[in-house]
Amino acid sequence: MTRPSGRAPGSLRQIELNLSVSKYAEGSCLVKFGDTHVLCTATVEEKVPGWMKGLGRGWVTAEYGMLPRSTAQRIDREAAKGRQSGRTQEIQRLIGRALRSVVDLEALGERQVRVDCDVIQADGGTRTAAITGGYVALYDALRHLVKIRACAKMPLTDSVAAISCGIYQGAPVIDLDYAEDSEAETDANFVITGKGGLVEIQATAEKTPFTEDEFQSLMALARAGCEELNRLQKETLGI
Amino acid sequence: MTRPSGRAPGSLRQIELNLSVSKYAEGSCLVKFGDTHVLCTATVEEKVPGWMKGLGRGWVTAEYGMLPRSTAQRIDREAAKGRQSGRTQEIQRLIGRALRSVVDLEALGERQVRVDCDVIQADGGTRTAAITGGYVALYDALRHLVKIRACAKMPLTDSVAAISCGIYQGAPVIDLDYAEDSEAETDANFVITGKGGLVEIQATAEKTPFTEDEFQSLMALARAGCEELNRLQKETLGI
Amino acid sequence: MTRPSGRAPGSLRQIELNLSVSKYAEGSCLVKFGDTHVLCTATVEEKVPGWMKGLGRGWVTAEYGMLPRSTAQRIDREAAKGRQSGRTQEIQRLIGRALRSVVDLEALGERQVRVDCDVIQADGGTRTAAITGGYVALYDALRHLVKIRACAKMPLTDSVAAISCGIYQGAPVIDLDYAEDSEAETDANFVITGKGGLVEIQATAEKTPFTEDEFQSLMALARAGCEELNRLQKETLGI
Amino acid sequence: MTRPSGRAPGSLRQIELNLSVSKYAEGSCLVKFGDTHVLCTATVEEKVPGWMKGLGRGWVTAEYGMLPRSTAQRIDREAAKGRQSGRTQEIQRLIGRALRSVVDLEALGERQVRVDCDVIQADGGTRTAAITGGYVALYDALRHLVKIRACAKMPLTDSVAAISCGIYQGAPVIDLDYAEDSEAETDANFVITGKGGLVEIQATAEKTPFTEDEFQSLMALARAGCEELNRLQKETLGI
Amino acid sequence: MTRPSGRAPGSLRQIELNLSVSKYAEGSCLVKFGDTHVLCTATVEEKVPGWMKGLGRGWVTAEYGMLPRSTAQRIDREAAKGRQSGRTQEIQRLIGRALRSVVDLEALGERQVRVDCDVIQADGGTRTAAITGGYVALYDALRHLVKIRACAKMPLTDSVAAISCGIYQGAPVIDLDYAEDSEAETDANFVITGKGGLVEIQATAEKTPFTEDEFQSLMALARAGCEELNRLQKETLGI
Amino acid sequence: MTRPSGRAPGSLRQIELNLSVSKYAEGSCLVKFGDTHVLCTATVEEKVPGWMKGLGRGWVTAEYGMLPRSTAQRIDREAAKGRQSGRTQEIQRLIGRALRSVVDLEALGERQVRVDCDVIQADGGTRTAAITGGYVALYDALRHLVKIRACAKMPLTDSVAAISCGIYQGAPVIDLDYAEDSEAETDANFVITGKGGLVEIQATAEKTPFTEDEFQSLMALARAGCEELNRLQKETLGI
Repeated sequence: MTRPSGRAPGSLRQIELNLSVSKYAEGSCLVKFGDTHVLCTATVEEKVPGWMKGLGRGWVTAEYGMLPRSTAQRIDREAAKGRQSGRTQEIQRLIGRALRSVVDLEALGERQVRVDCDVIQADGGTRTAAITGGYVALYDALRHLVKIRACAKMPLTDSVAAISCGIYQGAPVIDLDYAEDSEAETDANFVITGKGGLVEIQATAEKTPFTEDEFQSLMALARAGCEELNRLQKETLGI
Repeated sequence: MTRPSGRAPGSLRQIELNLSVSKYAEGSCLVKFGDTHVLCTATVEEKVPGWMKGLGRGWVTAEYGMLPRSTAQRIDREAAKGRQSGRTQEIQRLIGRALRSVVDLEALGERQVRVDCDVIQADGGTRTAAITGGYVALYDALRHLVKIRACAKMPLTDSVAAISCGIYQGAPVIDLDYAEDSEAETDANFVITGKGGLVEIQATAEKTPFTEDEFQSLMALARAGCEELNRLQKETLGI
Repeated sequence: MTRPSGRAPGSLRQIELNLSVSKYAEGSCLVKFGDTHVLCTATVEEKVPGWMKGLGRGWVTAEYGMLPRSTAQRIDREAAKGRQSGRTQEIQRLIGRALRSVVDLEALGERQVRVDCDVIQADGGTRTAAITGGYVALYDALRHLVKIRACAKMPLTDSVAAISCGIYQGAPVIDLDYAEDSEAETDANFVITGKGGLVEIQATAEKTPFTEDEFQSLMALARAGCEELNRLQKETLGI
Repeated sequence: MTRPSGRAPGSLRQIELNLSVSKYAEGSCLVKFGDTHVLCTATVEEKVPGWMKGLGRGWVTAEYGMLPRSTAQRIDREAAKGRQSGRTQEIQRLIGRALRSVVDLEALGERQVRVDCDVIQADGGTRTAAITGGYVALYDALRHLVKIRACAKMPLTDSVAAISCGIYQGAPVIDLDYAEDSEAETDANFVITGKGGLVEIQATAEKTPFTEDEFQSLMALARAGCEELNRLQKETLGI
Repeated sequence: MTRPSGRAPGSLRQIELNLSVSKYAEGSCLVKFGDTHVLCTATVEEKVPGWMKGLGRGWVTAEYGMLPRSTAQRIDREAAKGRQSGRTQEIQRLIGRALRSVVDLEALGERQVRVDCDVIQADGGTRTAAITGGYVALYDALRHLVKIRACAKMPLTDSVAAISCGIYQGAPVIDLDYAEDSEAETDANFVITGKGGLVEIQATAEKTPFTEDEFQSLMALARAGCEELNRLQKETLGI
Repeated sequence: MTRPSGRAPGSLRQIELNLSVSKYAEGSCLVKFGDTHVLCTATVEEKVPGWMKGLGRGWVTAEYGMLPRSTAQRIDREAAKGRQSGRTQEIQRLIGRALRSVVDLEALGERQVRVDCDVIQADGGTRTAAITGGYVALYDALRHLVKIRACAKMPLTDSVAAISCGIYQGAPVIDLDYAEDSEAETDANFVITGKGGLVEIQATAEKTPFTEDEFQSLMALARAGCEELNRLQKETLGI
């Protein structure tokens, strides 16, 4: 088996995490997993959703979008169609859950951080890039809150990153680009914290069911990949 | 640890699969997982979505809905709000993928089966009940197609069922009802075929990340549960 | 003239009123007029619509929906289409008016009862079944309010039921099923209270205009039919 | 009992039917029932709805709208809210049924006439004015079709008009203006053909149920009123 | 060059400004520019948009709509389509800006005037007619506010009118009707105050770019036309 | 008068036109007017809108969007709100008209070029940057069509650019950034071709009406600015 990109089965694409790229956002990161580019911005709002008012806790939420020509075939603008697709909603719910899993909502205080993940260019793995870059943007914004003394300490319990793995031509590989993703028999996304805790596993048989052994090999790849991403996050943030 | 229902950790709720309950639908099943009741109907349409026309293959899709007072707190009617929630879309996409994983789309021929899963009463596990009952409704409709000679043979490669597992008060348990589900630390759904193939795994840390060992114990429970569900499906269908 | 069902012109279909079928709703009734099955649930909300706030009076409203495969030809899910049809809105407005006509809104107090009528299976007469069963669900919920002493007395001034009549092959008949309804020359719905008061009359010439004499014969049938329904409502409620 | 307008119980308001007021429409009529003014335009389209294609028959449909400041309290523009209210849909369905009841759809041929009824000013009775004026606009358009020889003969079987009646301060009155309508105990609309056939009856108890005797007195008033309207329609059309 | 209407290049169509035509609106004007007829109503609301609350200033806003058969080809009802077109929104934003340019929002006090401009019949120039007539309706409503002493003085700093100009068959002409507008090479709208101040210029090359000289000739025509409109506004208002 | 940026009244911001930045789009340009960054992509579609089918001519259209945190205050995602604002629609209509003014639609052939302009960061002048960069993206895509011999020659008649001008603290200035734009008394946008033809003028008095002299000074600034932009477009495209 040769991967279209020539990468080894366990090799990530070229990863870039560009910190604080936005003139306005409290936190931001332009993340690149190869040709997949996602702009993540974190906005701090001094209010929480209605159902949380007065509880003294904060909230972190995420929104996801793709630019119309981020893909090989142009996709219709969701704003023009008047509704977000099921895929969009599924992904932004996933990003939100992943980020919240490492936030200390009490320490955040009664405010909301909204992380926008906008795909500038898509070549597979946009949701995992969004979680990995979204964490950096979130950290950037939270550090700002500590600096202006809105928070007494960093309201984080851990870091978080995500990576996709899949069975491509019978072999387990990591960080699939679009050429692999569209051919893979099984597609899985793993969200793993810096300390190694599992936050979310989503594995789907695209063609034929998979076995437990196959699943274990994907999980092993993901664990190593997220460790590498975690190291890059720290390096980027200078911590 | 005692479960609110008094069940053993590996015990399913009372399962009922009521076959062919609808006067009109080509296939139907009213499935009950304890107090969770889902009406599944399978409708055969002699056309496929636009992007599949002329390819000679069929399609299976699913829709999901909850009656407004299927839950303890009434939920607003999505038809009145004018849009389906992200949760609804996520679930119906999951049901569709699960059912398609065991269908031979070539053998089905250029037609679509639409499986509607409407939750009459919800007490946790509506998506797994919908997949399990949806398979029975689908089988019922496909058997009808064979009977009227629209299909030469049953266009199925396997059967499929689903079950939820979770970590409740530190212990792995199966088929969580709402009282457990709302308290569980980790929540996982498994879709498994009759032959034991894995079709979909979705595991989410609701509070704290989970370990690989915990995950393995959930998978073991799910495997046994789906075997039991598979046995009941066969019994119901008389095969 | 022979009716497709073989019934006499003035004979209702087999009527069933199943009380308190829902695990969660304050009041509920699964009503069956032959093969027409409607699940009615009554939800008590401790608030009223904005325009009624502070007036000390309550409100009763209704919503109506059909499951996609409640009919011979599957109908698209209104939640997926993003809007309720004119027919749906017309029917739910009718049900709401009918139920309010027998409620003492002052005695109800500043709260709202929302009656959801969901058609599980449709074979003609869904709106009249919904009113008849909706009254039972409403009574069930109001009795609960009296029991928990939220209301000092039953906030009802009368009972209410509804039935359809029509001119089928030149003859007046009651409680039309779909086979008759789709062929009827004139279609009329009557909402009548237990004491015999008229609440709503809707008569429509589907093909040719009707005469006053024909209309009188329909009204006479309806009067007798609603008396019978009223008797069954009392029996069901044990009053 | 004295009516706010000083009219006798059986007296219509000042009725005006202004024929062919639109520069563009194939048929039009600006109808006034006192201070209720409705602009009715009939548009001929050389196609029918999809479900009627190739059947050789035509169709007549109606749409209804109110200008935002046609009423004492400004109402929000439905185009801005993004949906038509249940009331709007109920009324336009009624107008369409009423007009179709006197059209010979075979003789019309495979084309559609769309009758738009836009309320310029509302003072009660907009739906009955719309049906009465809509018939004149429809006649105007159909006469045009005969003139250009698109139809061999007038595709009409009868004429049609409508009027409201109600119980106001215990007495039956005709053609209620807003001051009466908002106080009436019972409100009824009658659609009656030129030959005296009943097309639609809608009677609603706004406060307390009504009796058969009361209903009969409303029907008698309506019959006389529609005869008068029918005479004015003929006079306007010069037939 | 001969204009289809036979008018001289600098001649307006027959202009009519009918004051206070509405039974209910605080101010109103039915404006006619030839066969273009727009009903303008001004509604006073004792509240301002949320973002202006408590600032002590008022607001003026406008809405625009076209009746379905105001045009030669019927246009779909925006309420039925569920959204306002870009053109509608562009025009109503323009009308609002034009009217606000002459209002003293402090002197108006914390209230909103909403000017509805509904096109009864369209023959080119609906937006300029709407601004010209909308000003009269606005004046009418403001005069009412002064009369009932809600405002101490007329909250206006100037009057405002608008006119279209264009290059038709190579020559600059004013107040284009539809026959000219659809053929014009350049189309421009000018909003000018009574004192001669420029409020808005919108000039668009429909076919080939235009020169500065051409633009100057359009501006000269517009200036003379708005002076004439301003004179008619005063005459209508009796000031 | 000193501009916040220290620029001379007639000085543009730092302009960057980055050609062919997208991996997928047939043409693209990331345009920067200082801190205003707009990604323009041009997509070639081998079909035209329905109303143009079979006419042998092509079409160019534009869409516009802003990322949620492109601005100092986050703006809600239009896809989530379910509708595009009036401002968005107004801008994308302007961009489309501007680009079409220099395209030879016959020479383009029966295909559509769709230019997406997505604002990554906004600091005033997004619509003028979008037109200027959109032209470069369009040229890039058309050159591709000539290269693959889909078009026999470049289907362009001229080039086009746009710039904003305004009266800031009494003085005419060019290319306003947000700090100036939000304070300007008059705001004008000019779309001018490479040969100097005027395509669109939009001038608005934000506070007080403006004079003809003021307008002339803005036009003079715009003319010089567009010449400079035109020079940069050529340089970028290497022509």
